[in-house]
Amino acid sequence: MGSTSFQAPTGTRDFYPIELARRRYIERAWRAVSVRHGFEEIDGPTFESIDLYKAKSGEGIVSEIFHVHSGKDERSRAGAEQGGAREAPFALRPEFTPTLARMYASRAAQLPRPCKWFWQQSCFRAERPQRGRLREFMQWNCDIIGDGSPAADAEAIGVCVGLLEELGLTPEHVKVRFNHRGALAAVVSRLGVDEQHMPAAFVLLDRRDRLSDDDLEAMAFEFGITSFDFLRLLKRPRNAQGIDAMAAALPAEVARDAEALLEPLRTVESHLAGSGVGPWCSLDLNVARGLAYYTGMVFEVHEISGAMRAVAGGGRYDNLIETFGGPATPAVGFGMGDVVLSLVLQDKGLMPGDREIARALGLRPDVQVISNGSPESDALVPAVVGELRRAGVHARRSYKATKNIGKLLKEAADADARYAVIIESASEVTVKNLDDGTQVKAPRADLRAHLSPAR
Amino acid sequence: MGSTSFQAPTGTRDFYPIELARRRYIERAWRAVSVRHGFEEIDGPTFESIDLYKAKSGEGIVSEIFHVHSGKDERSRAGAEQGGAREAPFALRPEFTPTLARMYASRAAQLPRPCKWFWQQSCFRAERPQRGRLREFMQWNCDIIGDGSPAADAEAIGVCVGLLEELGLTPEHVKVRFNHRGALAAVVSRLGVDEQHMPAAFVLLDRRDRLSDDDLEAMAFEFGITSFDFLRLLKRPRNAQGIDAMAAALPAEVARDAEALLEPLRTVESHLAGSGVGPWCSLDLNVARGLAYYTGMVFEVHEISGAMRAVAGGGRYDNLIETFGGPATPAVGFGMGDVVLSLVLQDKGLMPGDREIARALGLRPDVQVISNGSPESDALVPAVVGELRRAGVHARRSYKATKNIGKLLKEAADADARYAVIIESASEVTVKNLDDGTQVKAPRADLRAHLSPAR
Repeated sequence: MGSTSFQAPTGTRDFYPIELARRRYIERAWRAVSVRHGFEEIDGPTFESIDLYKAKSGEGIVSEIFHVHSGKDERSRAGAEQGGAREAPFALRPEFTPTLARMYASRAAQLPRPCKWFWQQSCFRAERPQRGRLREFMQWNCDIIGDGSPAADAEAIGVCVGLLEELGLTPEHVKVRFNHRGALAAVVSRLGVDEQHMPAAFVLLDRRDRLSDDDLEAMAFEFGITSFDFLRLLKRPRNAQGIDAMAAALPAEVARDAEALLEPLRTVESHLAGSGVGPWCSLDLNVARGLAYYTGMVFEVHEISGAMRAVAGGGRYDNLIETFGGPATPAVGFGMGDVVLSLVLQDKGLMPGDREIARALGLRPDVQVISNGSPESDALVPAVVGELRRAGVHARRSYKATKNIGKLLKEAADADARYAVIIESASEVTVKNLDDGTQVKAPRADLRAHLSPAR
Repeated sequence: MGSTSFQAPTGTRDFYPIELARRRYIERAWRAVSVRHGFEEIDGPTFESIDLYKAKSGEGIVSEIFHVHSGKDERSRAGAEQGGAREAPFALRPEFTPTLARMYASRAAQLPRPCKWFWQQSCFRAERPQRGRLREFMQWNCDIIGDGSPAADAEAIGVCVGLLEELGLTPEHVKVRFNHRGALAAVVSRLGVDEQHMPAAFVLLDRRDRLSDDDLEAMAFEFGITSFDFLRLLKRPRNAQGIDAMAAALPAEVARDAEALLEPLRTVESHLAGSGVGPWCSLDLNVARGLAYYTGMVFEVHEISGAMRAVAGGGRYDNLIETFGGPATPAVGFGMGDVVLSLVLQDKGLMPGDREIARALGLRPDVQVISNGSPESDALVPAVVGELRRAGVHARRSYKATKNIGKLLKEAADADARYAVIIESASEVTVKNLDDGTQVKAPRADLRAHLSPAR
């Protein structure tokens, strides 16, 4: 075999131990917060039928997914030769929600109500990689399925805020911006936009903080939206947030009904306050979420300056389970990726140092076993290390040739070991506590009694 | 959108909470044992250049892997239209070793020697699914790179045995069978098999416990192996194991040099004994491992009856890093999948019950918050739950309509909660310890002081 040089595919990552520890630090927080909020973890296949993704998101998504097919599957190979969108029967998951909907739909009758499920694995997008966006990334989802109450809306936002708080973020760093598609649709409808133009109106609302008034007007014209009142709402100052600001922007004949129209927003707001996450959240008319399937409350988490992509986003999707063959079932959830979150944590100085992360992940060695340099002790190192490991102790030994005990003790300290154990003879060891510097001689048989439990 | 019914792709799994908890139980053991043995976790992309897999395993593997290509990547689409083996630029990883070798090769100069790396994620094989073999499965790898000593061979086997022991298996359930390709090649060569026929000889040795003497002889003839002495070794009783049995099977003129020829086997055996895993291990001439890249010690873990596929397998591969563009670097490692391991644990009654697994995984709820039924208390449930969760407590509430405290307490016990907290008023709670049945009234502000830390 010849020697070749290979690289990771563009937009994917190699995780050496330090990089993986940083990723695991985030994943550990995702898991801990999910569990603490009463969510149970599920998982599904890494690839699914390509039709599963079309069912939720339409044909558009197909160009942004990775196609998968077996090298020996004749049926799929024949499909591949024809080219086109049906060339591969499978696709790498671009997101988890279709799998979740499929799993719920296929066992709906046996599952508890609500199901509170979380999921954390990698997703894949065949997009051009750029800052904050990769072709393979880690994703965390939390979903409450079978509960249509505003309390569930608030609980979904609550677990998301719980994660932000767990990692040291505060409302000074990030903001949860929420809205309600039902309330928004009612207002927009009263402003003279008909059902047919509603999706276009949501697209315009979603983009209004990135576009100028002129661009918004041109785009509305292109979409065939002619309501002057809607354009006025669209063009009002971008920073005028809150329910009252929204009510104030309505024309007189609509404003009269503002309280009734905006009631779903008031309800979400009061539930957020009631569960203690009010300070993190603010109503934001600009949050409409691009995806067609949201039906009620929607929210996004953004770094406060707004300079980065969303850290997380989600909302209520009451029709999706039915689309996947299940019974009509209300649901609410959100997703958060590791890439933007990591950038925010680094930017705010909240990514701990390597040693602190290793300790948080339980990776700190308990014992470094050292020979006192005699041939007898040298020969005993593997046995002592083996005994400790079999007893559940994280034990290491040196792979260096040196017999200098000072150097070996320094290696133990560099590894952040809690103890160094020096083998003095077949029956005696020295146990040195590397945290406080104390040391004692002990019979080898009593070694474990001299090691305090970690933490 | 219409309603459709979807299924998971054949050979993949849906993991509902209970199934995923069982998988996480195994993965947690993999991680704990790896860390305790001084291994550090790494990860790489889920898909790699298809050429990466050809470099290690040759063209043969290509028919058993899943091809991956972007829906919009013109280059790969053009490739797909031509058909054939180069139709996709990427493949889902069928195993992790090529990624590990690529990662090591690209940073060899900066990495410590040895690198002790572990990895646990899913792998993909486009084979027909059958008992013990799926198209997507979890895999655990441990590798020691940059240490060519027999101590490293024994350490690799040691961490594998550590995992078996961690899950309650004993040498009565499973057996580690080892061999040495170098020793075996030396013997086979002395028996008159030339270099050119050596790979075929290893294939025959690898299959000898599944084939009859007649089939072995016919196959050897097909391969062009004519050495009578080799055939005699091949056909000797399958259960005659151990170094001495092997020596005894050699013809007189070879037997004279048996000690020198079999010395690598004696060395492995003594290191296994020295690190305390001797009782798990036995030499087995049948273990040759199919893959071409092994260069020294090889081993497999089998359920004792031999009825199932291997639980784990690995060995020394001293040339592989160089194949991937790195410096000449000795390495030894192994892989273990979750599918056969789970079957063995279930078969031996060693898969714990659901509640035990949930407790082992830290999923036990700390508190179930219950309203005493007054409207004031009902309204306070989200706030109390939110306060507890923000303080790091795993807190749940009921989603049932009932106000019957007996039923709500039963729900708490069914969830295995450690405490039930009944909200009596805005300022007072009852804390009931569900493990010992004791209960106290306490000011709501002191609630957390009445909850002992978990475990």
